[in-house]
Order: sequence, then structure tokens, then C-alpha cells
Amino acid sequence: MALQTRTIFIISLTIEGFMARIAVTDGIDENAAESLRESGHEVVIGHHDANSLESGSLADFDIVIIRSATKMVKEAIIANSGGNGSLKMIIRAGVGVDNIDIDSATSCGVTVCNTPGASTNAVVELTIGHLLSSVRNIVRSDRKMRDGVWAKKEMRGSELRGKRLGLIGYGRIARGVAEIARGLGMEIHAYDPYMSSDLINGNFTLHEEVDSIFKKCTHISVHCFFSDETRHMVNLRRVSLMPRIGADGIECGNHIVNCARGGIVNEGEILEALKSGKLSSAALDVFENEPATGNSLLEHDRFSSTPHTGAATWEAQARIGSEIISIVEEFEEGRIPASALNGLL
Amino acid sequence: MALQTRTIFIISLTIEGFMARIAVTDGIDENAAESLRESGHEVVIGHHDANSLESGSLADFDIVIIRSATKMVKEAIIANSGGNGSLKMIIRAGVGVDNIDIDSATSCGVTVCNTPGASTNAVVELTIGHLLSSVRNIVRSDRKMRDGVWAKKEMRGSELRGKRLGLIGYGRIARGVAEIARGLGMEIHAYDPYMSSDLINGNFTLHEEVDSIFKKCTHISVHCFFSDETRHMVNLRRVSLMPRIGADGIECGNHIVNCARGGIVNEGEILEALKSGKLSSAALDVFENEPATGNSLLEHDRFSSTPHTGAATWEAQARIGSEIISIVEEFEEGRIPASALNGLL
Repeated sequence: MALQTRTIFIISLTIEGFMARIAVTDGIDENAAESLRESGHEVVIGHHDANSLESGSLADFDIVIIRSATKMVKEAIIANSGGNGSLKMIIRAGVGVDNIDIDSATSCGVTVCNTPGASTNAVVELTIGHLLSSVRNIVRSDRKMRDGVWAKKEMRGSELRGKRLGLIGYGRIARGVAEIARGLGMEIHAYDPYMSSDLINGNFTLHEEVDSIFKKCTHISVHCFFSDETRHMVNLRRVSLMPRIGADGIECGNHIVNCARGGIVNEGEILEALKSGKLSSAALDVFENEPATGNSLLEHDRFSSTPHTGAATWEAQARIGSEIISIVEEFEEGRIPASALNGLL
Repeated sequence: MALQTRTIFIISLTIEGFMARIAVTDGIDENAAESLRESGHEVVIGHHDANSLESGSLADFDIVIIRSATKMVKEAIIANSGGNGSLKMIIRAGVGVDNIDIDSATSCGVTVCNTPGASTNAVVELTIGHLLSSVRNIVRSDRKMRDGVWAKKEMRGSELRGKRLGLIGYGRIARGVAEIARGLGMEIHAYDPYMSSDLINGNFTLHEEVDSIFKKCTHISVHCFFSDETRHMVNLRRVSLMPRIGADGIECGNHIVNCARGGIVNEGEILEALKSGKLSSAALDVFENEPATGNSLLEHDRFSSTPHTGAATWEAQARIGSEIISIVEEFEEGRIPASALNGLL
């Protein structure tokens, strides 16, 4: 008797379950795509360029899953939703939503979600990796070695222990970086005018002004969003305020890392600071213009970079996949997903 | 009256204090040299080659301070001590004493000391730096960028969190690495047949056999001395045992780091393992033959290296300087320094 009831329940799910048409325009974790298909959804993978989007190439889809390459501007949203199409949800596989016009989405009744927690640890580890690689000249050393030079003396570096790390922004990623950096023996400083006051504790020093954190810290890592307010926040004037000498009295030089968003660091001025010696190293995962090949920073010996791979780990992709599945399930059940950035549905 | 007593005491120290003739053959922290001179010692800085050493070029000195370049072999020790010279102490600024024949020193009445704690944190940080740089392709990415390639997809990496780190040797440096790696969310495994049993605790899994740690761990870091027993301990057969798939189920590949001593890793076999894909990365700070320029590992894309800079930080140099000053003070007072490796004086 119990078995029979259960069987009926399964049939009802298969027949009456919501089947969404999902477009995946910038790629997705294979397991996640498979899992969505197993749940009965139609998943169509393939890029849509700006022209196609504005001609309504997503009009037959319920959901579009994008990364950063697909630009969901006003025209792209209007052409595929409301009276013009069935698009009801944009899922950003990742965190940054600079490529989505959220206001237009809201006006058109399109819910926008992202997967905020999935990439945190990936970015935290890359940030610590860039910090350690910078102060110990790992990239420079390897290049010298391949050039046939055993530059043991020149490659002498400094330690993170005993130094002050200034975090611009104190969100989820910055707090993860702070935890590891504290374990490495660094003193944590943070600037974040939007920080919730319940995050304030004795583990770090909160700065009320941007300049003040630069004056105090030999190591600065950027962890804020890009906006008019944060554009070129890291510039030559501020780098010139950095102390060069660590809290432990060691002349470790000044170091900058940005694994957040391009444009927060003024690249031209950072190059100038590297040339004049005001900066001992700069490491960027993100750039004002990407792909950043041809960027003149790439010619400087003390600069090092990764091609926007902050979130690019297999683990983060798997976690993004799981978060996307949860979002689609919530959508299916008519609930507003927990990570919705506008209050629709 | 009290003042007068103190003055007399200072004069007596200056006149009757021990003044040693100290040779510094491989360089020393400037502040330490200055400080030794201020204490009244004569400090002569300059390299002595093997021939000079065997001709007694240190015979007029009481103490020689060396790093790794000066080889204090049997002949060099005999020619400068006992009946042939006044050399009474060899101080190794650093840890490894492979370049000192301690038995000959003991027979000749020469005390050998090193500065074991000074470089611990420097090596710990470089090891973590190499681990993070390896799994996130930092060195490879930077090279690609400079070659004009934005290899975002190819440079996708894996995270350390959730993986098993196998430490070959569980001395001071390995324990420092373990602490940071644990903070990064790694599970710690160790192999060390010479480990004191009071170090055993629930924070790591102790392996009784070398093979067993390779079978379990996707990430291996070497932290033991070089000896006949440890020579080529990391080889193709053992690397082939590594699981490729992390404890969290992610296919992260296998990774090797050696910031301890050259020769523990079989370089030819590691290159083979990189070529066949059995290893996803290898990072070496130390080599069988140094300088290692021209080493064929340097041609492999997934190999990265630093020129034996594990202890090469300004902080470690300063700490080595302080430890040397303490050793000379102890020698001066006729005590056996705490870091003496043979029980003389």
C-alpha cells in the first residue's frame, strides 16, 4: 500500500513538474547541465552575441544562465521578456552583475540571481597566492631561471608575518582573506563604508578614510565592487602614502593585489609607481580592458598577473552548479530564490 | 656612588672582554656585522675558495661564519684548527650543515653551530606560496600573458581546501606549513620516522611508510634532511601512487613541492611524470646541482622554481644575525651555544 502511494507521487512529479527552457550562453559545469536535464528541463548551450540578444534570440527561453561575457543590457532584456518573450530569469553563474541591467530586468518582470558564495574560497586562495608570490618573487624567479639566470641574491624577498594588510572592502571574500592572513601573522586593516556594524570586532582595525589605510599598510588587497566611487581608488597619490617599512621594522616595500574588479586600480599610475620604485610589486587578476593582452604593465618585471581566474577553480564551478540547481528548483516551486537581487516573481 | 660602580664595570668589559677574529665567507646581515664590531670583535668579510681553505687561510681566525657556498670539508678543517690554526668555531648562518664535516670538526676541537629557528617562517611562507601558485597556475598564467595569450580557460585551477597535504618530514618547518595549510582547510598527513612521540596529536595523520602517504595525498611537500635514506625519495614510482582526485572528489591532479634540499626529489623522474601527466605541477626551490640554470625541468610548462631562496628573506637574515650574535656571546662566555651540533668547548 505504501509503495503504491509513492509510485503515484513520482508519476505526478514527472508529468506535472515545471519544465523550463534554459539557455546557457557562457558555459556551465557539465554535472550541473546534466542534473538540470535529468530534472526534466531543456538545456541549450551556446553563445548569443549582442545583435542576436537584441533581436530576441532568448525570447523562447524561460531562464538564461550567463557568466560575464554575455551583456544583458536594457535592449537585450526588453527584446526577450514581457510582451516580447518568455524570459523570466537571468542567473549569473558567479558574483559580479555589472553586465546585467537590473533596473530594466525589474521593469520587465525578470528576476536576476547570482551565486554569491560559490567562488569565495577560490578568490581567497588566489589572493593569498598572489600576495605570497609577490613578496617572494616566485614569478620573477621562475622567469629568470628560464632565462638562464640563478638570481639568488636579487630574488631575496620579505615575509608576510609581522606586516599590515589593508583590505579595501570587507565583504565575504575579504573576510576569508583576513582569516588566512591572520594565520600567517599579518595585522588586518579594513576600509568599508558599507560594512554592517555587527561585523566589527577586535580582529581588525577599521578605517574611516581610504587614505588612512594606505598610510598604515605595506600590503593592500582590493575586495570591493566596481562603481564610480571605487573607480581608480588605488592610484599613484595613494600608493605614495604607503609606508614601505613593515610594522616589524623590515623594509619590505609596498605591494598591491587586485582579484576583485578591473578599473578599481589605475593601471597607468600603478605602472608609474612600479617604475619609480614606490611599489615593489603589483599583481592583478582583473583589468580595465579584458582580455588584457598587450597591457603595458605586462612589460614590467615586478608585475604579475592571472587572466581573471579568481573564480576559475573546478571546486567553484561545482559549487556554482549546485547553487544554480537550487535557484531553478526555487523558481520551479514559485519561490523567490534566496540570492535574488530584485524582489520579483 | 652607584654611578661610579657602574662606570668601572663598563671599563672592565671593554678592556677584558673577549675579542674574536671572525671571518665571514658567504656574507652576513649588515646590522649583525656592525653589532659584532661594536662588541669589539674583528670581522673580516670575504670569500675563501677550497684551495685557500686547505692552505690554512682561516688559521688566524677564531670563528668562521659561513652559509652554504663555503665547504668545510675535512682538509679545510684540519688546515685551520688544532695544531695548524686557531679556528675554534664554525657558525652556519642558516640550517643545513651538509657542507660541514662535523666529525672532523669534533676531532679537531671545533664547535659547529647553526641558526635553526631563524629561517623557519621564511621557508613556511615560500612553501605555501609555491603550493598556491602551482594549483592556480600563477607562474604559467603570467608567462602566457606576457606571450600575448589570455588563457582564461586553460588556466583554470583547483583549490587547496578539502585536499590532503602529505608532509615528508615533520620538523619545525613542516609543522609551520601544517598550521597554515590547516587554516586553508587541508587535511594534514605526515611521514617522519624520527619524530618525537610527544608531537603526535589529532591534528594530523601519521604514516609509518613512505608509500602510504603518496597513496593518500594529492599534494606532497618535502621537509626532511638530505641523506642516503632520503635521496630520490620522491620518484616516479611513488608519484604514480598519488590519487589525482582530492579528498573532496575534485580531480585536482597531483602536486609536488620541495623547499628543503636538492636530491630528495629525483628530477629526471619528476620531469617524466610531468610529461606523462602523472604530475600536474612540480615546484622546486632546491636542486641536485646548483645553480640549476640549464636544468631540463625548466623547459616544462607545469614546472616552476625559485633559486634556493627558501631562507632568503630580510626577516630571516635579521633573525640569523641575532642568533649569530647570541652564539658569539655564548662562545665569549665559555658556554656551549644552545645550537651547537657537537658537544665541544
